[in-house]
Amino acid sequence: MDTERYEQGKRKLAEIDGNGGENVIASLQDIAPDLGRYIVEFAFGDIYRRDGLNLREREMITITSLLTAGGCEAQLEVHINGALNVGISASKIVETFIQCIPYTGFPKVLNAIFVAKKVFMERGLAISGPQS
Amino acid sequence: MDTERYEQGKRKLAEIDGNGGENVIASLQDIAPDLGRYIVEFAFGDIYRRDGLNLREREMITITSLLTAGGCEAQLEVHINGALNVGISASKIVETFIQCIPYTGFPKVLNAIFVAKKVFMERGLAISGPQS
Amino acid sequence: MDTERYEQGKRKLAEIDGNGGENVIASLQDIAPDLGRYIVEFAFGDIYRRDGLNLREREMITITSLLTAGGCEAQLEVHINGALNVGISASKIVETFIQCIPYTGFPKVLNAIFVAKKVFMERGLAISGPQS
Amino acid sequence: MDTERYEQGKRKLAEIDGNGGENVIASLQDIAPDLGRYIVEFAFGDIYRRDGLNLREREMITITSLLTAGGCEAQLEVHINGALNVGISASKIVETFIQCIPYTGFPKVLNAIFVAKKVFMERGLAISGPQS
Amino acid sequence: MDTERYEQGKRKLAEIDGNGGENVIASLQDIAPDLGRYIVEFAFGDIYRRDGLNLREREMITITSLLTAGGCEAQLEVHINGALNVGISASKIVETFIQCIPYTGFPKVLNAIFVAKKVFMERGLAISGPQS
Amino acid sequence: MDTERYEQGKRKLAEIDGNGGENVIASLQDIAPDLGRYIVEFAFGDIYRRDGLNLREREMITITSLLTAGGCEAQLEVHINGALNVGISASKIVETFIQCIPYTGFPKVLNAIFVAKKVFMERGLAISGPQS
Repeated sequence: MDTERYEQGKRKLAEIDGNGGENVIASLQDIAPDLGRYIVEFAFGDIYRRDGLNLREREMITITSLLTAGGCEAQLEVHINGALNVGISASKIVETFIQCIPYTGFPKVLNAIFVAKKVFMERGLAISGPQS
Repeated sequence: MDTERYEQGKRKLAEIDGNGGENVIASLQDIAPDLGRYIVEFAFGDIYRRDGLNLREREMITITSLLTAGGCEAQLEVHINGALNVGISASKIVETFIQCIPYTGFPKVLNAIFVAKKVFMERGLAISGPQS
Repeated sequence: MDTERYEQGKRKLAEIDGNGGENVIASLQDIAPDLGRYIVEFAFGDIYRRDGLNLREREMITITSLLTAGGCEAQLEVHINGALNVGISASKIVETFIQCIPYTGFPKVLNAIFVAKKVFMERGLAISGPQS
Repeated sequence: MDTERYEQGKRKLAEIDGNGGENVIASLQDIAPDLGRYIVEFAFGDIYRRDGLNLREREMITITSLLTAGGCEAQLEVHINGALNVGISASKIVETFIQCIPYTGFPKVLNAIFVAKKVFMERGLAISGPQS
Repeated sequence: MDTERYEQGKRKLAEIDGNGGENVIASLQDIAPDLGRYIVEFAFGDIYRRDGLNLREREMITITSLLTAGGCEAQLEVHINGALNVGISASKIVETFIQCIPYTGFPKVLNAIFVAKKVFMERGLAISGPQS
Repeated sequence: MDTERYEQGKRKLAEIDGNGGENVIASLQDIAPDLGRYIVEFAFGDIYRRDGLNLREREMITITSLLTAGGCEAQLEVHINGALNVGISASKIVETFIQCIPYTGFPKVLNAIFVAKKVFMERGLAISGPQS
């Protein structure tokens, strides 16, 4: 095991996803610990720690990709929390999903919005802002 | 036809995608002019003109969604040009695609990078920056 | 807001999806009211109101696209109800899904059929007809 | 081999896709003849020959599913020809693709429209009709 | 109905998927019995009975395809059971999913692993082996 | 840079994909060298070097995942070559694709078969075997 990459990735994961990310890694310990290790080492240790984009940009890209892929509601929930954790506002998350409509159609955007609604309610967030 | 939305959308399309976007609309005139009209009115007149995200953020979301969807190389080419037009650097476009690796896997990222390579070469851009 | 398109779309949405569609729009009011507005104005006001296909054909296309996309069970439930509302029989809905087998494979067809089964049971419909 | 299903399927394939379908089957003879046989026996012998939907409805479902799946331009070309062969007008094919916009977004619709444009030009068809 | 193919397919289905597969077929009887028949005749009677790959290889391919498609958790559950039934070990199933990471990204692999975790727990299986 | 993982990955990539893989990495040098590095380090250094599955099994999984994803013809070409390089016969590659029909439908299988046909012809391979 590559201790340095792992430790760096673990700190980055905690910074972004907090408990949500750590719970995913913990839930893999008894079935696929290496999958958890690769998420920590590669996704968070290698990719999220790169220069060139800040964490708000990286989470905006991540939630866009998860919305577009479809069927990733569990990961969307973790990363909508992650987006809020790194400072993207609730209304900007909603706006990110609205920007996807022309490219993905309405159903995937609806699916993502309903995950966001659940997360925002759990965190006691009211939505406001650029809605016209 | 909704003249005001159309004219506003047309200006926004020209601002972002330049000739590339206009060529798409023109190529639809003899087969599906209403499809071109909806792209102008809805995608560019309604969505891209919204507050809450700037054009660089909107294009970052767009190229992420197109990469993730797959099979949209023609639209990626238009919007990689669009991303450059609104001020995203070539190296930041590459970095956007690299951020997608953990969520989409390598093949879709490779497809998008080779479209970007073609666009960058056509525009005489050298890549540099956050690559380590 | 474009009142006329909105009102026309709202009537079309009510005609097709009934309570199911209105519930979706209502559930968006506190998080993304503009997403609901675009569904009404663009999807139902612009697209569903077009000539060239009748509502039965449009719903047949819609449930085919939702089945093929995958991961859109909530929207399939609304539009299987919509298909019944505009006069497509239960057995013709099943037949539409069977036609998709060669193009999508069995798993997506199974997912759609189990949504249809739930809808048909809620509406007290027995299936019969072209099954051999 | 199941001669009756094969012969029935072959006639149905010829009725719908004409040369385009037969060329696909022929091109499989030296690499995967059984794949060709299953297309004939199962897709055309079993599915397309069913009651409950007419061939125009079946081809409308097929081109919708191929558009939504993405990356199936070769098959779309065969089945846009097939749709024309069984009596769907060019403008109704375009209208079918326009109905998909709210569910798939614009890029997949654009890809399908450009395949249709190629087919219509090869067949010398002018488009007209429900475009506003 | 093609009695021989059906009976052969039914035996193959029972051999692989056991109760899980038979429950799926039974659940289709009142809504789409022909869909069940095609699964038995075509998928299991025609495809799974072919030479050239053994059943362990066929189930490895099947669970890989279901993971990659996304949104097929119900079918993954049936076929993870099927994979175990034909002699693939729990740790080899996990390893199959790990091999998919570079091609599908982490989210789809996580979805599949959590289905496997449920199946392994229901069958009282402990995981061990090639995890480092 | 992690020299040991890189060198190990490079040897594994050469073993499997030969020139095809090296050409992909080389073509990334001027635009996204880190993408090439991650493919070498993570996909080949970390994943392909694992125990628990042999290289023939790993390539069977890879070509199945690429077929199912769709739109990955360039990567399929590299990995069909890779599958042949590690000892999977041409007819077994074809059989792998045939096993996918019930799960992905015919169009994606056709796309993959035509890539295989190109590869087999370039390598002067005749197909034979389990086709009936």
